[in-house]
Amino acid sequence: MALVVQKYGGTSVGSVEKIKNVARRVARSYDEGNQVVVVVSAMAGETDKLVGLANEVCDIPDDREYDVLVASGEQVSIALLSMALKSMGYQAKSYLGWQIPIYTDDAHAKARIKEIRDENIRADLEKGTICIVAGFQGIDADGNIATLGRGGSDTSAVAVAAAMKADVCEIYTDVDGVYTTDPRIVSAASKIEKISYDEMLELASLGAKVLQIRSVEFAKKYGVVIHVRSSFNDNLGTLVKEEDADMETVLVSGISYNKNEAKISVIRVPDKPGIAAALFGPLSEANITVDMIIQNVSHDGFTDLTFTVPRTDFKKALPIVEESAAKIGAEKVQSDESIAKVSIVGVGMRSHSGIASKMFETLSVEGVNIEMISTSEIKVSCVIDDKYTELAVRVLHKAFGLDDESVKDEE
Amino acid sequence: MALVVQKYGGTSVGSVEKIKNVARRVARSYDEGNQVVVVVSAMAGETDKLVGLANEVCDIPDDREYDVLVASGEQVSIALLSMALKSMGYQAKSYLGWQIPIYTDDAHAKARIKEIRDENIRADLEKGTICIVAGFQGIDADGNIATLGRGGSDTSAVAVAAAMKADVCEIYTDVDGVYTTDPRIVSAASKIEKISYDEMLELASLGAKVLQIRSVEFAKKYGVVIHVRSSFNDNLGTLVKEEDADMETVLVSGISYNKNEAKISVIRVPDKPGIAAALFGPLSEANITVDMIIQNVSHDGFTDLTFTVPRTDFKKALPIVEESAAKIGAEKVQSDESIAKVSIVGVGMRSHSGIASKMFETLSVEGVNIEMISTSEIKVSCVIDDKYTELAVRVLHKAFGLDDESVKDEE
Repeated sequence: MALVVQKYGGTSVGSVEKIKNVARRVARSYDEGNQVVVVVSAMAGETDKLVGLANEVCDIPDDREYDVLVASGEQVSIALLSMALKSMGYQAKSYLGWQIPIYTDDAHAKARIKEIRDENIRADLEKGTICIVAGFQGIDADGNIATLGRGGSDTSAVAVAAAMKADVCEIYTDVDGVYTTDPRIVSAASKIEKISYDEMLELASLGAKVLQIRSVEFAKKYGVVIHVRSSFNDNLGTLVKEEDADMETVLVSGISYNKNEAKISVIRVPDKPGIAAALFGPLSEANITVDMIIQNVSHDGFTDLTFTVPRTDFKKALPIVEESAAKIGAEKVQSDESIAKVSIVGVGMRSHSGIASKMFETLSVEGVNIEMISTSEIKVSCVIDDKYTELAVRVLHKAFGLDDESVKDEE
Repeated sequence: MALVVQKYGGTSVGSVEKIKNVARRVARSYDEGNQVVVVVSAMAGETDKLVGLANEVCDIPDDREYDVLVASGEQVSIALLSMALKSMGYQAKSYLGWQIPIYTDDAHAKARIKEIRDENIRADLEKGTICIVAGFQGIDADGNIATLGRGGSDTSAVAVAAAMKADVCEIYTDVDGVYTTDPRIVSAASKIEKISYDEMLELASLGAKVLQIRSVEFAKKYGVVIHVRSSFNDNLGTLVKEEDADMETVLVSGISYNKNEAKISVIRVPDKPGIAAALFGPLSEANITVDMIIQNVSHDGFTDLTFTVPRTDFKKALPIVEESAAKIGAEKVQSDESIAKVSIVGVGMRSHSGIASKMFETLSVEGVNIEMISTSEIKVSCVIDDKYTELAVRVLHKAFGLDDESVKDEE
């Protein structure tokens, strides 16, 4: 008998009809002989509605009470799903975070799971009960409700699967799985059958928003096999799992892009110890996350420093950087909001040379200028003018052999 | 320093604006030097919306899950009210049933409070925190959420006030207090300044729906003084408390009516032991509550038995009664759905004679025929044709000196 954890997101439980559909899917897994634990998000739109109420009440909602408020969304969906299953003749029982319990730290609205006690759920599973767990929520050591941040139900599901040593954690969503790139840009994008945790982390953080990144970190840490699949059909989706030999035969697994960053360059900085700290310390204090950082080689004792920040933080970051730049004697600060980051990701890169240069050449042939480059073991990212984003993704997808030949690409 | 428990119903917290208004009212009580515990209902319409979802999912929602579902409504309002208070600079903290905890029995959707542990709230009050408690909910011994039934927040408030020995339990609602009768029928109806628990129980159960009847029973048992008042103005409302000498000087405190019953008569029943059990046993098994029961004196070994049932149960009750009547050899069954029950209530009745006959005479003068009569120590009820309801209430209100002379009655 296998233990299956299934997670259904907000769009999968977005209406009473969809909840009944989920109930049938859960029941089928149970009928196949599995023990089933289901993790559910709030019905689509509900969390936004609750956040809207909070913002109407006051400008900066208290964080403890914010969590009490938004955690009510999952309470509704677990109750409705349990009712649906019971009305179909199955034993089912809903669990709120405190009823399991799922213990977290006390960082409200972005809490991290510390411990899951599975005795209650385990006992119910042994009695043949389907256990329906509220995603996104837990309690801290003092019994306050704490939520895990948007998308946190993915992490709840993986954490429950890890704690209970589940055979698989199925994440149901509104797409068929993880794609080689955004199908809205490349219609020949194909579904990836299996992908390693590290590749998934690079793809997720780079903009392929199928799974909350923290859930993938969690899965990697505890070796939980994730199956990302659609709640609207029976197709097999994408397995996210430990790297295996097969995966290395693929040079590039996927192409991602990110248009949510802006570039800031500090020109002719005196090259001496402490300049990086002087520049990035104040940004960090302002809670601005810096992504790519490139420092060129020094000429005549001066160097140029270029980095990217989230585009939403750009206006806040610029005056901070200008002040720091003046202090360290830099010549000037340049910036550009119209950039995009395009990345190729694949564990196969580690054992093959020439991948990066193939990427550069492919872009060059199309006249796309590369403004910044950063690399990791399994990723190469280029910052380009954002008007070339779709073109760059398309040519790279084709160049690395990812186009699904069965799909006629109309572009 | 007084300890004040305030309860706000769904209409009082029906919008963000109204929640802010409640926050100002709570803050004022705190600023006056009180320790304040606030019990809140779900925002108006929310519980109905949740019940609607449950009924869409299945015909007979599971009762455990029903409670998980509907308890989420109060979770939203306590969080919003706490946020509002904190944004005004007050210390405030929300409490769900399980966080206090409020222990109930396991009768889902109609649970009874068994114990309230007040250590957590008490400690917060001592620190100057305003405690915001979710009404309507508690947990059973196994940690399942249990709700108290519609209107249960009144009972939550009185139970918290009793457990904490509060100085007063203020029930805020959308009317100014308890009136001598329904102001929609008699515009000269006046607000009652103070009323005994027993009178309030008679008035509440007879149709004056200001307070949940169970909350009044609770208040009586523990001697909690209830102040029913409006959340939209600062008028003093009605005090519901132990009977005092003043109250006896008023012959009749209020006139109530109830159009929600139907009458069933079993004619010429052989008068022998066991016939009442034979008639009412099957009704009780079908969960039909019988209200008034009148058995006339026996003639020739036969008697007539008349009783009332809720009008919503009438169609279900009639065939059951007909079957029982046949078994015990009654001649026939008659019924009437067009009845109303009009009652006069007052502790003054106990020490004054002639109150009942004055009621009968007043009705007779207007040509209103009395079909059934029942009396208690502090109440006389008459069943009449329901088309005379308004007329009867009006003339009784005037006859017992309840008309507010300052109001010009247009009728």
